[in-house]
Amino acid sequence: MTLSQSVLAGNRLSIARLLTQVENDSPEGRAALVELFPHTGKAHLIGVTGAPGTGKSSLVNQLTLYYRKQLAARKKIAIIAVDPSSPFTGGAVLGDRVRMRDLSGDEGVFIRSMASRGSVGGLAQPTASFTQVFDAAGFDIIIIETVGAGQSEVDIAKLAHTTIVVEAPGLGDDIQAIKAGILEIADVLVVNKADRPGVENTERALRSTLELAHPTKRIFHHHGQTISIDAPETDANIWIPPINKTVSTDGKGIPELADSIAKHSAHLRQSGDWALRDGARLRSELEAVLQEELVNHFFERVQKAEYESVVDKVLNRNISPYEAVKLLLNGNTEQKK
Amino acid sequence: MTLSQSVLAGNRLSIARLLTQVENDSPEGRAALVELFPHTGKAHLIGVTGAPGTGKSSLVNQLTLYYRKQLAARKKIAIIAVDPSSPFTGGAVLGDRVRMRDLSGDEGVFIRSMASRGSVGGLAQPTASFTQVFDAAGFDIIIIETVGAGQSEVDIAKLAHTTIVVEAPGLGDDIQAIKAGILEIADVLVVNKADRPGVENTERALRSTLELAHPTKRIFHHHGQTISIDAPETDANIWIPPINKTVSTDGKGIPELADSIAKHSAHLRQSGDWALRDGARLRSELEAVLQEELVNHFFERVQKAEYESVVDKVLNRNISPYEAVKLLLNGNTEQKK
Repeated sequence: MTLSQSVLAGNRLSIARLLTQVENDSPEGRAALVELFPHTGKAHLIGVTGAPGTGKSSLVNQLTLYYRKQLAARKKIAIIAVDPSSPFTGGAVLGDRVRMRDLSGDEGVFIRSMASRGSVGGLAQPTASFTQVFDAAGFDIIIIETVGAGQSEVDIAKLAHTTIVVEAPGLGDDIQAIKAGILEIADVLVVNKADRPGVENTERALRSTLELAHPTKRIFHHHGQTISIDAPETDANIWIPPINKTVSTDGKGIPELADSIAKHSAHLRQSGDWALRDGARLRSELEAVLQEELVNHFFERVQKAEYESVVDKVLNRNISPYEAVKLLLNGNTEQKK
Repeated sequence: MTLSQSVLAGNRLSIARLLTQVENDSPEGRAALVELFPHTGKAHLIGVTGAPGTGKSSLVNQLTLYYRKQLAARKKIAIIAVDPSSPFTGGAVLGDRVRMRDLSGDEGVFIRSMASRGSVGGLAQPTASFTQVFDAAGFDIIIIETVGAGQSEVDIAKLAHTTIVVEAPGLGDDIQAIKAGILEIADVLVVNKADRPGVENTERALRSTLELAHPTKRIFHHHGQTISIDAPETDANIWIPPINKTVSTDGKGIPELADSIAKHSAHLRQSGDWALRDGARLRSELEAVLQEELVNHFFERVQKAEYESVVDKVLNRNISPYEAVKLLLNGNTEQKK
């Protein structure tokens, strides 16, 4: 049995081995991904993002435990924790260990951290490859957990079918500004740590920002007068992100959150947005691979000494990086003629 | 007078105009950058990064005010605030307005936010171009402020000569893990909000993580015994990041922080690291431009219909993204033969 056949059969050891090969971008890993790709497209990809301190990891754990307890439709869950901390201090390992305690011994759950170091082209591409491995291996739900303050992490989360943005009360003044940016990508909003003081303020702030993004009234200012008219009738195809309140330490609000996620999934299928989001994800993955291969091909063609002599001109500030690239690309064209 | 001549003369209106052109990646902007590039390389680039809620923006304001009050060496300061929030809710604009109050009317200070939307290739390249504009326009210190939880933002901050990582007491449990990752890029550490409870804990945690990264003793475990030996004699060329405590609301600790920055700058010049960091920055900028141009050239060569037919095969899961790229690149080679 080949590695990809064994992954298709759901063998945990083979999955773990393939994920490592994918992370190292090995030829075997690439070959297996090619074989597995036609078997993907079934899983529901859920992105979970939020600033540090919002408790998203325990929320993901609780949600996973909840899904596993629904015996009627016992779903297999994979969790990809995209961890911006480095392997050096073991951030990723620590996170895994805490999780193991809650979810270990359950064959229907697979947790994998991905640290950001070492991956030249960012994390979006390995994350996409990881989801394909889990998807082909028969996992029904794949949760991609990222720290939501950074643009690249937000970019990863928004590649999911359903993006959950987690907030928590009282996280300091900078939070407001960031919230605005990531609110736009939210399909479901969660105010976690809802047993803490200030939860009403957080919820109110979220509602007013949501109102800005999805107005039910339109307001005009005209010759000093304020005119307010109703927005066009609510379209059934328009999804207004619900706000869920949860306490991830004791699991309060988790069933309601799971319900919001199920509703969003149904909405995506009805509106055709499911296919649109799938398409957008695959398109950007294709572009990322294309970009990488173009760069690889370039460095195969160009002489190292030639490249370094152009770099030297930039370092001495004789020519700008733009001029250097023009020189490098024209030089190449001439070689071929 | 051309736009770049006017920028070289320090004209604020021209600087503002050029920054907008650079942000839009206009041909005029590119041309001006090429003209300005030989005039760059003088400014001290300072990266300031930290999680939301650490108060880094007020810290940057206080530091700027302090520099401007040093009448003996009255430095010109530019601040680039890399803002992950979107233009839609005006996060960037709001931040600017708060700052205007403190720093407005001072011709020696220029503040510019950069929102992350719309820039296809990430923020590293426009940030690098912004620093070149300010550098050529005669700004002595360029502060690049980023939110430090995301990998891409950390990548931007570490392109500076001096990277300041800002922490604050009591920011929740996730922070520890993130700290580990960004600690490695810190040249100067700041515990801001040092008047708050928990400041000793934060400082202790930082010291022990620093100890891990820069050990003064080496510890071995051998047959059940722990052996501790002194690390090799401290090399004058090794920089151990100092920890500064500040209260950015009242400016406490700011002179000491400015002193740490000055010492780091002197260390960089003595050790030769200044030139090394400059070189690394210019190299990665060159690579980014190269990557972008390779992609542009590819899309100039390839027929839109041909590209879309390959995309369709991926969307229908007939071929994987890797196979699609192979097809696209081989197709191209054949066209040329």
